[in-house]
Amino acid sequence: MERVKCTVQYDGTFFSGFQIQPDRRTVQGEIEGALQRMHRNRFIRIIASGRTDTGVHARGQVFHYDSDLNLSEDKWKKALNSLLPDDIYIAAVEKVSDDFHARFDVKVKEYRYQILNQKEPDLFNRYYHWHVNQSLNVENMKEACRNIMGTHDFTSFSSTKTTIRGDKVRTMYNVDCLQEGNRIAIQVEGSGFLYNMVRIITGTLVEVGQGKKKAEEIPAIIEQKDRALAGLTAPPQGLFLWKVTY
Amino acid sequence: MERVKCTVQYDGTFFSGFQIQPDRRTVQGEIEGALQRMHRNRFIRIIASGRTDTGVHARGQVFHYDSDLNLSEDKWKKALNSLLPDDIYIAAVEKVSDDFHARFDVKVKEYRYQILNQKEPDLFNRYYHWHVNQSLNVENMKEACRNIMGTHDFTSFSSTKTTIRGDKVRTMYNVDCLQEGNRIAIQVEGSGFLYNMVRIITGTLVEVGQGKKKAEEIPAIIEQKDRALAGLTAPPQGLFLWKVTY
Repeated sequence: MERVKCTVQYDGTFFSGFQIQPDRRTVQGEIEGALQRMHRNRFIRIIASGRTDTGVHARGQVFHYDSDLNLSEDKWKKALNSLLPDDIYIAAVEKVSDDFHARFDVKVKEYRYQILNQKEPDLFNRYYHWHVNQSLNVENMKEACRNIMGTHDFTSFSSTKTTIRGDKVRTMYNVDCLQEGNRIAIQVEGSGFLYNMVRIITGTLVEVGQGKKKAEEIPAIIEQKDRALAGLTAPPQGLFLWKVTY
Repeated sequence: MERVKCTVQYDGTFFSGFQIQPDRRTVQGEIEGALQRMHRNRFIRIIASGRTDTGVHARGQVFHYDSDLNLSEDKWKKALNSLLPDDIYIAAVEKVSDDFHARFDVKVKEYRYQILNQKEPDLFNRYYHWHVNQSLNVENMKEACRNIMGTHDFTSFSSTKTTIRGDKVRTMYNVDCLQEGNRIAIQVEGSGFLYNMVRIITGTLVEVGQGKKKAEEIPAIIEQKDRALAGLTAPPQGLFLWKVTY
């Protein structure tokens, strides 16, 4: 038996999220189906760094599983990709020690949220960007980013539908706003994330960029632990789980 | 009654091509359906610059139609976009004189073919690029482009399934190969095109880039008017009708 760690990319558009659900097309369901075919119909459970919602993408999601097939890393990669649909791609395979755990061992997770900031929509990017047609002030957004960084109770930036028990203190190591022409990417690196947290951070930053909120209001919004004070939840299709570091 | 000229973008992925067909989802069918709704269920025929195949996209397809609704250009644009699905977008509307004809008056058509030239596939571009994992020599491809330019009988670069009668002489005003990192775009501007012509030009240029064919062989391939001598037909998803000039 050996433990295998995979880095996987997926286009979340046509999936009902990552996590397996009956009668829905999910990323986990497709990957476990491929593994089952490779193991003579024996079920193999995968453990991912966490789930992603419907419409959310991944450039660098990570999962692990145990197998006795004894394949090389390269063979695993080729075999899995040959069995997976064209909206999932295994980018890297690595054999790891038995005590590696894709969820419990996460040190940093990086998300990116892509915004297309121009008057006209771009239909070729409709699944991968949030189109914001009102011009955004990126300098103000960057200032707001600096106010989100650090260790805080992020209740204000968490969906009230959350099922997370326990405290909502998380550490954001880096929050930045990268601009390239009409494209703006919100980059968020943290120790862990609450439900819808990156999308609520993005919605709030966009309201700062539009002048509806001020960057200096962020500390008070965090302080009051009230979801109603932060901005709207940005739509799912701009969000990418970018990188998981162990 | 006035004549309206529209510039339309579409993502060809989920269409059975541009031209209307019974029981298929087509770009023409969607646009004529939207116009019919605007005209109290009266059918309005549109005339495009030409058709595009299944999976082929457009940045600047042009069509015209006649209407007695007397809307401003801006109102037409908003009304049509509000009725069209999210993979069709009317980018511009212009009122033109009654003798304008979107097919007969075409002076130059520009197509672009997008290639992703890197070892690993990029699933976020799977609908908009041809992934070629063998490294391409772009200088040799550019030399081949220069040999395609000009006025020739392009029988060798036309599908044998063509239904075009009459001569196959066309003029290519510009054929070029643009590189930006791992992305290569084949740019072709011509007076008119035969069936599958840009995809066969692309397939041939890629074989030159791979070293399977030489740039100097192009004149002889043209000369012999034999489809079997040119390269493979590139897949549809990399092709964009880029611009139509009148």
